[in-house]
Amino acid sequence: MCSVNPGHCTLIKFIFLLLIIIHLSLNTAESVWPLPQIFIPSPERYQLKPQSFSFGYRRYLDTKHSCSVLDAAFKRYFSILFPGYSYANLITFSVATQLLFLNSYKLSVFAGQASLNAETVWGSLRGLETFSQLVYQDDLGSYYINKTEIEDYPQFNYRGILLDTSRHYLPVQAILKTLDAMAYSKFNVFHWHLVDDPSFPYQSHKFPDLSNKGAFHPVTHVYTQSDVRRVISYARMRGIRVLPEFDSPGHTKSWGKGQSELLTPCYRGATPSGTFGPVNPTLPSTYQFMLSLLKEVASVFPDPYIHLGGDEVDFSCWRSNPYIRAFMHKMGFGLDFSKLEAFYIEKIVNITSILRKTSIVWQDVFDYHERRRFLSVVEVWKQGCYLCEVRRVVKAGLRVILASPWYLDQPGPTHNWARYYNVWPLAFKGTEKQKSLVIGGEVCMWGEYVDATNLSPRLWPRASAAAERLWSNERQTSCVERAFPRLQEFRCKLLRRGIQAEPLYVGHCKHEYQTV
Amino acid sequence: MCSVNPGHCTLIKFIFLLLIIIHLSLNTAESVWPLPQIFIPSPERYQLKPQSFSFGYRRYLDTKHSCSVLDAAFKRYFSILFPGYSYANLITFSVATQLLFLNSYKLSVFAGQASLNAETVWGSLRGLETFSQLVYQDDLGSYYINKTEIEDYPQFNYRGILLDTSRHYLPVQAILKTLDAMAYSKFNVFHWHLVDDPSFPYQSHKFPDLSNKGAFHPVTHVYTQSDVRRVISYARMRGIRVLPEFDSPGHTKSWGKGQSELLTPCYRGATPSGTFGPVNPTLPSTYQFMLSLLKEVASVFPDPYIHLGGDEVDFSCWRSNPYIRAFMHKMGFGLDFSKLEAFYIEKIVNITSILRKTSIVWQDVFDYHERRRFLSVVEVWKQGCYLCEVRRVVKAGLRVILASPWYLDQPGPTHNWARYYNVWPLAFKGTEKQKSLVIGGEVCMWGEYVDATNLSPRLWPRASAAAERLWSNERQTSCVERAFPRLQEFRCKLLRRGIQAEPLYVGHCKHEYQTV
Repeated sequence: MCSVNPGHCTLIKFIFLLLIIIHLSLNTAESVWPLPQIFIPSPERYQLKPQSFSFGYRRYLDTKHSCSVLDAAFKRYFSILFPGYSYANLITFSVATQLLFLNSYKLSVFAGQASLNAETVWGSLRGLETFSQLVYQDDLGSYYINKTEIEDYPQFNYRGILLDTSRHYLPVQAILKTLDAMAYSKFNVFHWHLVDDPSFPYQSHKFPDLSNKGAFHPVTHVYTQSDVRRVISYARMRGIRVLPEFDSPGHTKSWGKGQSELLTPCYRGATPSGTFGPVNPTLPSTYQFMLSLLKEVASVFPDPYIHLGGDEVDFSCWRSNPYIRAFMHKMGFGLDFSKLEAFYIEKIVNITSILRKTSIVWQDVFDYHERRRFLSVVEVWKQGCYLCEVRRVVKAGLRVILASPWYLDQPGPTHNWARYYNVWPLAFKGTEKQKSLVIGGEVCMWGEYVDATNLSPRLWPRASAAAERLWSNERQTSCVERAFPRLQEFRCKLLRRGIQAEPLYVGHCKHEYQTV
Repeated sequence: MCSVNPGHCTLIKFIFLLLIIIHLSLNTAESVWPLPQIFIPSPERYQLKPQSFSFGYRRYLDTKHSCSVLDAAFKRYFSILFPGYSYANLITFSVATQLLFLNSYKLSVFAGQASLNAETVWGSLRGLETFSQLVYQDDLGSYYINKTEIEDYPQFNYRGILLDTSRHYLPVQAILKTLDAMAYSKFNVFHWHLVDDPSFPYQSHKFPDLSNKGAFHPVTHVYTQSDVRRVISYARMRGIRVLPEFDSPGHTKSWGKGQSELLTPCYRGATPSGTFGPVNPTLPSTYQFMLSLLKEVASVFPDPYIHLGGDEVDFSCWRSNPYIRAFMHKMGFGLDFSKLEAFYIEKIVNITSILRKTSIVWQDVFDYHERRRFLSVVEVWKQGCYLCEVRRVVKAGLRVILASPWYLDQPGPTHNWARYYNVWPLAFKGTEKQKSLVIGGEVCMWGEYVDATNLSPRLWPRASAAAERLWSNERQTSCVERAFPRLQEFRCKLLRRGIQAEPLYVGHCKHEYQTV
């Protein structure tokens, strides 16, 4: 297995050589999804022989001879390219790498050879994915690839999918399968909404009671430290960052079961009602706990970012509690509970900074607070004029992740995919500098009505529509009708790779999904 | 394997003995879905030991000693009850049976024994399903069943699910899996919408070109005679009839590829446009072909019914064709093309009668024609005031199958299930005799956006809501809130049995669905 902690990658100029048996003839090229920035196909084609095909390194500026991430990717893509054949040419050598945003690569298929150039291993992974989509079989089963020149890089650096493992528990296998499919669409961030009101499946080593008492089941419905490591490692091997979210002060009901005095006791008149509200922001013990928990999170999750949530805080419980009201009075907050929320969030953001992590928050934190300088990245999720909101955030000099148009947990007919395709994150009035603050977008798969039974068909191929928007040049991908057959073909490729992607419309794939 | 052709079942009074080790204690009873007509649970419980559990026959009025349908059911339900244990007590003995509508049974669990009484094997199968839902495990893994008295029978005799294998091809395995899940919800008719405009996957032995040229692929996307036999046999073993639909004269584009001169050539002005419309009702060859095809269908599918379709016939192509217009003139139909349609349908219904099969048609045939006496069963599918339509049909003395409220191919949030539950097929003004003509209802899963990737989560557990409506007493099942926890529990049972049933709302099952 691959080492989990990302280190520094010393590979500066990465080049592969793909050995291809030349067998020249003419044919239509395969399509690629998401569309590369520069894509010059040609009808000239070369035959690939699985028996004599191999991946290799041509030249690199490091003294080490290979990279574990890419060696594993060679193996993976060989199986994808040639199901049933085995790849012997494996060198295992560990090279620690850093999760960079850089995903650019150049791919050239010419004269019976393919060469892939990339600045980073992550760019190389994107290029391998593109390469794998270029290979096709004729009716007799022979493999071909057309002469092709590609220069490619993503439009946005943050291309995320949120999975919610609190409203329903997702078995680790379902998460890994999603990571596979994400890599095929060139997504690079898995936003793990680990915990929420209904359950706390993250098994903390510092606070084991959080999942012992707060998970749906303390043994079968938890993510152990080993599960989390496995997810992070699996994602990293596919060029995907894992962004953990520990949403507070709202959305924390399940936290209260294993951590007494964390949540605010709600009052009915002068006596506690027995129910609990958001995290209690008035107690020093709250911040000691949060520091301790986030310290653990910061060490378990190597990503430089932590999502702190901060959405949908219900003030009614705080308002009912006389101790909270007394604190408000002492602090001079008047009756404005959003000031209390800001007080809490600022402290949590500061804790996160001390842990050398950058915080991401939901737009609520930005919307309801006057002091915004302490924020870094804001995720816009509310419906309505979301571009107005994007504009407000970038005008405040903060970075933005856009999620509003990509709430895919809502079921919808698949032909609806165009709704997720025709999204223009930069279509607002602003300077180039402001637009550069829009770092990307995210597909959200909330869990009220979603678990492992319907996750895949609800995500794919609709999420792939968002993926092309986030990767490709919007001028080249503005026509839904032109995109449709390419997305259909990509969906068939997903089926071929075992991803339960639902159909876009009437029709068929050469290889249909096989029910178990 | 079981014999495909149904014969006559001489078993009149069927009784089982289930041996249970007594181990008395008190506990809450398990729920059953759909709710039995009379259900008297008790907190008294008995322990079941997989090692010493067996099914057996107590008494029957035939000289034969067992029934293959039930022997296979014993084996199946033993695995469902006790996963991981193997059932040795198998007697193989073939008894041919007739597909009767009778599904009633009595089940009594008392003093460490369970006895199941039924008039037919099909009633016995329903009782076994109920029995299997009564058994539960405690936290230590021991099996229990509570003292229970049940008398049960279905409210409606026709409880169907339509699958559409033309708009997308469904691999046989996906159909079999659906049949499994149907049996768990006590559905008893699989309405197989085999062919339609997009493809003709039925491999006819008389007309092999229909699928050779009309299927999406002549080898990988067809149902061979052996596939069809397998589906029928698999369904029969689970007490499910297979109702084949060969929809005409519309919805037949794919037929034309392998059967020239069957479809009407459309004209642009005085010349054929190159496109084709509905079946050509003016040529004698059409009826020779239809007789020959339906003769094959009648012999391949043992069910006494054939669905003839007859919906959504577009007249524009008929109208464009001068030969059709000349025929209309000759027949004195004027400009009323619905008369031409009626002319065609009457002939096809007559052919079906000659083949000793009863025909079912979509409501269009009833709606647009004055002469209705030649019809038998009408399936109501249009939205709007569907009960008004049901009333019109029964007033004409015809039998009705109601499908309108159960078009589940449309995706919707699962909490929507109540919409399919709160359907009252008999809530129209009419005599008892008229109401008795409503023979049941049907869940339709059209294939525009559905294939094996999303079939299961889109069907289950929403179809189960319809199943309870069609099986149970409507007075006992009119409260959505009371049904909800029982349906949630049933959905967990479906997961446990490997059915990819999507969640109803936030929560968890003891055994979640495992991604492969």
